[in-house]
Amino acid sequence: MSGTLRIGLAGLGTVGTGVLRLLEAHGKDISKRVSRPLEVVGVSAQSQSKDRGVDISQFEWFDDPVTLAGSADIDVFVELIGGEEGVSKTSVEAALSRGINVVTANKALLAHHGGELALLGEQNGANILFEAAVAGGIPIVKAMRESLSGNAFGRVYGILNGTCNYILSRMEREGSNFADVLADAQKLGYAEADPSFDIGGVDTAHKLALLTSLAYGTKVDFSSIYIEGIETITSADIEAASDFGYRIKLLGVSQKTETGIEQRVHPTLVPKGSAIAEVGDVFNAVVVEGDFVGEVMLVGRGAGAEPTASAVVGDIIEVARGDTVATFGRPASTLTSYEPAGMRAHEGGYYVGLMVLDRPGAMAAIAKRMADQNISLDSIRQRSRSPTRETDMPAKPVPIMLITHETTEISVRAAIEEIERDGHITGRAQMIRIEPT
Amino acid sequence: MSGTLRIGLAGLGTVGTGVLRLLEAHGKDISKRVSRPLEVVGVSAQSQSKDRGVDISQFEWFDDPVTLAGSADIDVFVELIGGEEGVSKTSVEAALSRGINVVTANKALLAHHGGELALLGEQNGANILFEAAVAGGIPIVKAMRESLSGNAFGRVYGILNGTCNYILSRMEREGSNFADVLADAQKLGYAEADPSFDIGGVDTAHKLALLTSLAYGTKVDFSSIYIEGIETITSADIEAASDFGYRIKLLGVSQKTETGIEQRVHPTLVPKGSAIAEVGDVFNAVVVEGDFVGEVMLVGRGAGAEPTASAVVGDIIEVARGDTVATFGRPASTLTSYEPAGMRAHEGGYYVGLMVLDRPGAMAAIAKRMADQNISLDSIRQRSRSPTRETDMPAKPVPIMLITHETTEISVRAAIEEIERDGHITGRAQMIRIEPT
Repeated sequence: MSGTLRIGLAGLGTVGTGVLRLLEAHGKDISKRVSRPLEVVGVSAQSQSKDRGVDISQFEWFDDPVTLAGSADIDVFVELIGGEEGVSKTSVEAALSRGINVVTANKALLAHHGGELALLGEQNGANILFEAAVAGGIPIVKAMRESLSGNAFGRVYGILNGTCNYILSRMEREGSNFADVLADAQKLGYAEADPSFDIGGVDTAHKLALLTSLAYGTKVDFSSIYIEGIETITSADIEAASDFGYRIKLLGVSQKTETGIEQRVHPTLVPKGSAIAEVGDVFNAVVVEGDFVGEVMLVGRGAGAEPTASAVVGDIIEVARGDTVATFGRPASTLTSYEPAGMRAHEGGYYVGLMVLDRPGAMAAIAKRMADQNISLDSIRQRSRSPTRETDMPAKPVPIMLITHETTEISVRAAIEEIERDGHITGRAQMIRIEPT
Repeated sequence: MSGTLRIGLAGLGTVGTGVLRLLEAHGKDISKRVSRPLEVVGVSAQSQSKDRGVDISQFEWFDDPVTLAGSADIDVFVELIGGEEGVSKTSVEAALSRGINVVTANKALLAHHGGELALLGEQNGANILFEAAVAGGIPIVKAMRESLSGNAFGRVYGILNGTCNYILSRMEREGSNFADVLADAQKLGYAEADPSFDIGGVDTAHKLALLTSLAYGTKVDFSSIYIEGIETITSADIEAASDFGYRIKLLGVSQKTETGIEQRVHPTLVPKGSAIAEVGDVFNAVVVEGDFVGEVMLVGRGAGAEPTASAVVGDIIEVARGDTVATFGRPASTLTSYEPAGMRAHEGGYYVGLMVLDRPGAMAAIAKRMADQNISLDSIRQRSRSPTRETDMPAKPVPIMLITHETTEISVRAAIEEIERDGHITGRAQMIRIEPT
């Protein structure tokens, strides 16, 4: 590999301008590292005139990123447009079709079309590098695709969305409720105006789908992921979990089981003092379990212009060195079919939160329904009753939280249905899995 | 790259046999990943007949590793002999001289001769891959050499020796003293019969020297490292640190300062609740600070046959793919001279432990010596005095522990010298740096 590496960059939002700033700051040193010059030769974005704080007049402008990807004289196409369809997809296809390596931060695109795009690239001698698409600046993609690839992986899990982790961390620290912290996070720029992708767990699932393929060599299968967001988590849940010795985190978990692969995104209780429980605020973390290496955890900033630019440029450097590796660490044509495991069979402990109508026999009835499903209880927490309650007043709801011993999701759901049918609780029961760490 | 990757493996201790077991378990899957077969064609060790639990009769035997490295038909030489001189060095030289890539776990060899060996390799078109030499299974070398290489690094630090971390963790948990825990660790196989390399900090320094070169592009300079071990840490220090809100860890720290680079290995107070403080037992952790990525931490098993084998095989896979990178991430000929910063200038808070003779005026004299050096105190902890003390008895020593605000090592050392000269304390004063995390 020699001669100038000619870079085409599409998308000049915060990450795109971050990449330009990084190349401005360290481009010369990087050129020395890789023994060849790096040059951005063309850029494309929605507006040519917008002030981004970086001078783009030195680069050739392309109104259409597909033209940049498909016909400009470039050696690598950097896609930072975003979105699972539209010009992000067509421009990536245009680059891969003519054998040009693609660097992207686009998790949605790869979660939905990663398999076919990897194959298209492979047929034309190009790879997709996507370190920036999973956990921002954390070098987890390369670690799994290369450094740790001698291992058979059993489980990969992580905190993959900084917005959710920030909200949950603040709810715990301040005892505030979800809606207030979300509103504040939006004001501070930590949450989007439409936060549903983040707090609903979809963003985490996009990233998880990619980690799953890296871990098990299976085709990307976003549609199989079970997704629950953090919208239903209350400050009472967080407080009770804390009393029980746990923190609540939104985790993406991908696990190899005897029947197939389980991919799930949901709020999770993790024991305080475990490494992942200590990862707070906007930080992300990924834990990989390999049969030889054991448990490896990587922690860092999962979003933001600068950490994401670090990951994008790391991939550009890889292209400059001419040492790119197959998109998912093995030939795309050899990725195996994804075999989903039965999610409902998930075994483990559970946290259950109930608003119980405070009347005689309610607790006994609940305990019986649990026992009927062979669920044994580890701990129970009941908030103090109102001291002035009179017996002839209507029954008031009292929050009761339980931690079960190991059981199955099917059993817990069945018990909760029975309890709801008994009429002893009001509202929706809360059920949160405990993830062994 | 195609055709069989022919591996020559020298050294069949725990790591070497771990590598053979890993290749036996996952060799076929790895071959699919890299689209070429992997085959161990020759091995060398001290004894051919020793029972290692793996069948080595299928491999050609070499009495002399230098012959294996220098004249066998191999594509990669894996050096797991250990030691900074002798056949480990001559065999690595033999391989590099004929342009054969070397994979090694030998931190001592590289800490002492890494620069010249990298250059020798470069002159002949070969690289040294040493993921296994730093923090075992943790993929920190590749992360710094490749994924994060778009950053300028400001500081790299870590827990790089599992034996020390295990001893300190147990001392804290059990309140036991150093000698007892060390003896037990030796019984359990967590510490060597001669533990001086581990507990004296030399092993940590070997690894730190390599991280420094990766971070700053400087020549490996082991001799500049300031080294203090954990031998003088008492359970009283650990308890006092804990009361002050800290844990004691043996850290290797490499920092870029205005005057040059500071490399130091010493016991350190890190605040409880910081990510690195929660890394206990035999686990290692490395924190990298990059100007774009921010702080990234990697945690995992830093030693042991299987995690180390994972790292060795990850490097073998890199060779199999034909995408090796310059040994220290940039051409060896461009590594710059190492400019040491003045260690004694190290700024930060300090923990000071004194056995003070319990007599009137002692505390005031100590406080005055601190004030004379412009050291202001953050906290003081004094153990309760014996309740039955009579005034005419000889003065008994009382442990007093201090935490200073930010100051310099020169000032603290000067104050301690004065305090010792005043005759108010007995024994050696303890001084431990607080590392900002």
